Amino acid sequence: MRDITILPMTKVEDALYHGDLLVENGQILAMGETGTLESGNAEVFPGEGKVALPGFVNTHTHLAMVLLRSYADDMDLQHWLNDKIWPREAKLKPSDVYLASLLGTLELISSGTTTFADMYFYMDQVAQAVAESGLRACLCKGLIPSGADTYDASLAEGLNFALSYQGAAEGRIRTMLGPHAPYTCPPDFLRLIKTTAQRENLGLHIHLSETQKEVEDCLHDYGQTPPQLLQSLGLFDLPLLAAHCVWARPEDYPILARARGVTHCPTSNLKIAAGIAPVSDMLAAGVNVALGTDGACSNNRLEMLQEIKLAAILAKTASKNPRALPAFQALQMATLGGARALGLAAEIGSLEVGKRADISIFDFSAFHLTPCFDSYSHMAYAALPSDAHSVMVDGRWLYRERKFVRLDAEAIRMEANRAAWDLVKR
Amino acid sequence: MRDITILPMTKVEDALYHGDLLVENGQILAMGETGTLESGNAEVFPGEGKVALPGFVNTHTHLAMVLLRSYADDMDLQHWLNDKIWPREAKLKPSDVYLASLLGTLELISSGTTTFADMYFYMDQVAQAVAESGLRACLCKGLIPSGADTYDASLAEGLNFALSYQGAAEGRIRTMLGPHAPYTCPPDFLRLIKTTAQRENLGLHIHLSETQKEVEDCLHDYGQTPPQLLQSLGLFDLPLLAAHCVWARPEDYPILARARGVTHCPTSNLKIAAGIAPVSDMLAAGVNVALGTDGACSNNRLEMLQEIKLAAILAKTASKNPRALPAFQALQMATLGGARALGLAAEIGSLEVGKRADISIFDFSAFHLTPCFDSYSHMAYAALPSDAHSVMVDGRWLYRERKFVRLDAEAIRMEANRAAWDLVKR
Repeated sequence: MRDITILPMTKVEDALYHGDLLVENGQILAMGETGTLESGNAEVFPGEGKVALPGFVNTHTHLAMVLLRSYADDMDLQHWLNDKIWPREAKLKPSDVYLASLLGTLELISSGTTTFADMYFYMDQVAQAVAESGLRACLCKGLIPSGADTYDASLAEGLNFALSYQGAAEGRIRTMLGPHAPYTCPPDFLRLIKTTAQRENLGLHIHLSETQKEVEDCLHDYGQTPPQLLQSLGLFDLPLLAAHCVWARPEDYPILARARGVTHCPTSNLKIAAGIAPVSDMLAAGVNVALGTDGACSNNRLEMLQEIKLAAILAKTASKNPRALPAFQALQMATLGGARALGLAAEIGSLEVGKRADISIFDFSAFHLTPCFDSYSHMAYAALPSDAHSVMVDGRWLYRERKFVRLDAEAIRMEANRAAWDLVKR
Repeated sequence: MRDITILPMTKVEDALYHGDLLVENGQILAMGETGTLESGNAEVFPGEGKVALPGFVNTHTHLAMVLLRSYADDMDLQHWLNDKIWPREAKLKPSDVYLASLLGTLELISSGTTTFADMYFYMDQVAQAVAESGLRACLCKGLIPSGADTYDASLAEGLNFALSYQGAAEGRIRTMLGPHAPYTCPPDFLRLIKTTAQRENLGLHIHLSETQKEVEDCLHDYGQTPPQLLQSLGLFDLPLLAAHCVWARPEDYPILARARGVTHCPTSNLKIAAGIAPVSDMLAAGVNVALGTDGACSNNRLEMLQEIKLAAILAKTASKNPRALPAFQALQMATLGGARALGLAAEIGSLEVGKRADISIFDFSAFHLTPCFDSYSHMAYAALPSDAHSVMVDGRWLYRERKFVRLDAEAIRMEANRAAWDLVKR
């Protein structure tokens, strides 16, 4: 890439406003002021008017739920789940999840996301979609046992997926175990998962302290907050990714600081009326707060610019401080913070020599990005998903000049649409 | 328009999923199920896969501030205003405001907004941009007297603009008087404005109860909340548009219900850490709550989809009720509610026979809008500004198939960019 604005997302002052970046063998080989690198015979991507930054890392999704987007909204959580979402999910076929996941990858890629962490079921189908899309992903099967006699079978399914797909898609797929939440997974089941994850060297992805009711019930049942409960079961001794933590309490912060990361999902949290997570306080306590969209039924988008902006502006009002969570920090949560949350910070999350070339390029020539006095501000507050211009993972273009390189978007859209209407009539 | 989804925004059940709509002489002549209308020789807009709804009404902007977007963010309000925004605004030339306003109209039009209410200065330049753009607008000069001896001169300027431009641009421009806020306009000045507005049959546009400090200071100085103060001065006897009302108190709601409308600006309010307006409570008390973006320095976008979604999801968490402010109601705030707030509900704000043909058409063929089980949900929660496909005001296309019909967007962008960089070096 030549003469492009580079936001490496390491430190504010590392931005290069006329930068060149060399990619070789899927890696960032060199980076510097325009004209200072030996580019040899490499293909040149003309960067004028564009901004390159690390691809966004969406650390909490249920990708295949795009198939039910707009099927049910503005409802009480329990009605929504019991009467709408779960009955339809029960009728999902593996092929639905495959098509839905492909549909979801279109949205991720075209808005600048290069890595996502997903928890769902029929995960082999999700993995297939990831492989075809060229994206990077951390996948796990969501584990919800229906009784003590199903612990082994439930775990076996999740473990089988995790072991089979670890390192798949040329290393772009990593796997975890996904105990759904403390309120759906009893302590004995969590202990079993902990032992297994430790033995197999797997991380965990779990929903945690999402609603006030969850925390109150946990205190009632166990005399502990959900993070305290998980800590007492030893889960924080493993690499842990905790989604939501809307109702994390000050006594939880030191515990959460031991996790790889907490995924803040501001849009989903507001939409289901869960609340506003104490992001500034968790950050001050040393928690690695990353960002996620959650599924398309509770968002209803899978694009990260919305989460970056909402995280930044919500934190200002929540802490009554307009200087809270400035643009750079919000963007870092969506990139390097996300990579850390997934244990991938040595490979992705920032633009640094030696890291994988997972790069999103935004076109700053739009009238709503003119003038540009501050690229970070524009990325965090003004840019739209449609400003995403080109996206690469492992140095391979997935999206270039707003066109998909590997996927037939229109065919996927048509097939997924048919599958969705078939599903709701099933 | 033929075979298009029509969301008239009158009642939820008024949606037509295969509808035809006839426009003649700038008005909606007829509307009905596809195939039921006599279309004669009218040009046909093919509507398959598209959704037509009333153009959005953005009821609080400072359009020309796009020239300083990203110039200063993440700062304390007083530093931001005193050290960054006001010094630059003091150096604005009329030609800057003209170019900036044109630049802003590109963003409004291309995201489906057809009417906006603006308060700034050099308003003749803003009016010129409105006339050229084809948009509809309610304009007023922001009045901030610098002392009692400037009351008459300040008012004269605002009044001169209001009287000169009332009904300009073929009736698309309406004017108001714009006392900036109770904390910048002393009671004597507000009384003078009230008498004048009453005599000249003009409405008022004012900032009200935006920050906690404003309300506390007002209580300290006058023993009344800002709405109570304005009521005691008789301002609610006039058609009043009150922006923000973040810190409106229950005792203010009956007063605010007397206003034409309150403009909720959720993004701006969060970003400057002003807080979260009690929207559900105000609506329940009969207040007409409309939506606005505020200026591009405190948002930093001028597109209404963001405000619609944020209003809807913030209200759910603020009222701890996921059923609060459902998709339809949020969209209605941005259309019919906005029209009411500007006193234009007899002419615009809904798609009804006899109303002006101010129509925005969204393309629902994007993968992030597939499948579509609920058009209202998609408009409120999933659609992006880039899904705006075609926009007309008074039956004339301003934007068609994502291209500007009347404006040279690239030329405007280049000129405005030069003006912006010149401004910050001035």
